[in-house]
Amino acid sequence: MHTISQLQEKVNKQLSELHIKPSPAHLYDPIKYMLGLEAKRTRPVLVLMSCELFGGNIDAAIQPAIGIEVFHNFTLLHDDIMDNAPLRRSQTTVHQKWNNNIAVLSGDAMFVKSCQLIMKSPDYCLSEVMDLFLESSVYVCEGQQLDMDFEVLKSVSIENYIDMIGCKTAVLLASSLKIGALIAKANARDSNHIYEFGRNIGIAFQLKDDLLDVFGDENLFGKQQGGDIISNKKTFLLLKALELSGINEKKNLDYWINKPNADNALKIKAIKDVYISLGIKEIGEREMEKYFNIAMAHLNEIDVSEERKVCLNEFAGKLMIREH
Amino acid sequence: MHTISQLQEKVNKQLSELHIKPSPAHLYDPIKYMLGLEAKRTRPVLVLMSCELFGGNIDAAIQPAIGIEVFHNFTLLHDDIMDNAPLRRSQTTVHQKWNNNIAVLSGDAMFVKSCQLIMKSPDYCLSEVMDLFLESSVYVCEGQQLDMDFEVLKSVSIENYIDMIGCKTAVLLASSLKIGALIAKANARDSNHIYEFGRNIGIAFQLKDDLLDVFGDENLFGKQQGGDIISNKKTFLLLKALELSGINEKKNLDYWINKPNADNALKIKAIKDVYISLGIKEIGEREMEKYFNIAMAHLNEIDVSEERKVCLNEFAGKLMIREH
Repeated sequence: MHTISQLQEKVNKQLSELHIKPSPAHLYDPIKYMLGLEAKRTRPVLVLMSCELFGGNIDAAIQPAIGIEVFHNFTLLHDDIMDNAPLRRSQTTVHQKWNNNIAVLSGDAMFVKSCQLIMKSPDYCLSEVMDLFLESSVYVCEGQQLDMDFEVLKSVSIENYIDMIGCKTAVLLASSLKIGALIAKANARDSNHIYEFGRNIGIAFQLKDDLLDVFGDENLFGKQQGGDIISNKKTFLLLKALELSGINEKKNLDYWINKPNADNALKIKAIKDVYISLGIKEIGEREMEKYFNIAMAHLNEIDVSEERKVCLNEFAGKLMIREH
Repeated sequence: MHTISQLQEKVNKQLSELHIKPSPAHLYDPIKYMLGLEAKRTRPVLVLMSCELFGGNIDAAIQPAIGIEVFHNFTLLHDDIMDNAPLRRSQTTVHQKWNNNIAVLSGDAMFVKSCQLIMKSPDYCLSEVMDLFLESSVYVCEGQQLDMDFEVLKSVSIENYIDMIGCKTAVLLASSLKIGALIAKANARDSNHIYEFGRNIGIAFQLKDDLLDVFGDENLFGKQQGGDIISNKKTFLLLKALELSGINEKKNLDYWINKPNADNALKIKAIKDVYISLGIKEIGEREMEKYFNIAMAHLNEIDVSEERKVCLNEFAGKLMIREH
């Protein structure tokens, strides 16, 4: 079995060797650029970790693992257009570096490439892996649409929010793990437990992201700090703050949310102060722990020796204390 | 064997029964809208026609056939964003009816749906069909990028143009036919002939489209008349006109191509007049016939009885005389 950093290295090596045609340059340069940005490679590493958890050979899983990473980067590329985001992984986004049309089309080509890589799954699980991958892709699209819908909805419940991040983020982590399990020929019961481990850890992962956007260190975070606050994004933090706020805090939040052309730095500070006064950071951390604990219970149910689970335990632990 | 209109009816029936979720509405309504627009269903009909040509059962081919149509509509949806097109099939384009973000994302979801439908191909040819479909999707992306690149290139050769429409249009028609052949278990030689029939008929098809844009009847054409002229699109007609023009025609073309904020109607008339004076319509028609004849030679090579080829012969003939 390999360590997380060994698996990351393997994924990065394989990605660097991925054949991407030289031309048309406007189609393929953005793909090389996206895949060349430094990243944690969480999803492909999860495919490989899960494969090893169930005693599979990671050589059979490496191509679909890379496919998941290419797919994830495709979704980031298109999401960045929709969110008009300036930065991704501390670098200029594709639509800013080139333009929107190029970002749309190179994203499309990345999606095709991801399907081609998933199609390199072993024959005995090809249909099941591909069907799961495509089903997850549907959820990711739905999650992104719900995310955009929430921007203009007056009220969003925390339940709706958790459903949305379930689709947008958690399902792909869950599928990554299940794909590794299918390649390792794990049984249905264990495959479902690893999926549920991933789905719950994915929700915890997104709650951590929400917290990092407001309370993280910009230099480590790699995205625009306070971006969620600037765009009035209805994150867990904002929804909880709106739920718990008294008259004064509510007035303060409403003022900044509805103020046109607000100064970004002032707005971030003002809303962050409300969060702090309401103890939102701690509430967010508790919510995150709730999902973390459900995830760990599913991991615990999986019928393999505890030594084999060390890697996934470590991964889950790191997730909780990460700074970016 | 079925007639073309029976096959169109079958495709339309199947498309109308396609399960598309109700929510999120902003994700799925544009998909229903796109698929609900009246269309000739050329590609799925080709899948079914080819399947019957080789003695296959079209029930085994109907789902992947629908998948090809969904994919084609996805590419139209994203192309319309990139081209900023106001009309598609005589109706408002998705990005105009909703907005660009919704058009990007619902397009993505359509692409996923198309893959899911292609994955319903019979087991014995699933990998081959899916690989061919994905390879074709790559070409379609490349073709669209080349098309956009050509807009800003100073000079484009007719050879480059034919390569571009080969990727953007012809390959998908070719693959549609080959997918039908694979499902009908045709041999490799015949599968390749039907592919080459499709590729060449596809180039003829696009040359016909170029001609219709300028010389067609707007009420029948379904797209903005003269749209290629307005956007200075380097079609076969424009490239040939630039090649054949004398000093005066060249000056005239350059004037209108480079004139900012030109009146659309005046520009269309002026450039159309140059085309007429240079005999570009007839040259375009001869070029179209060249590819048509190559296509028919490939059809002729296919080792099935002539009665079985009646439908494809009729299809190819209709293509040449269509008005939209």
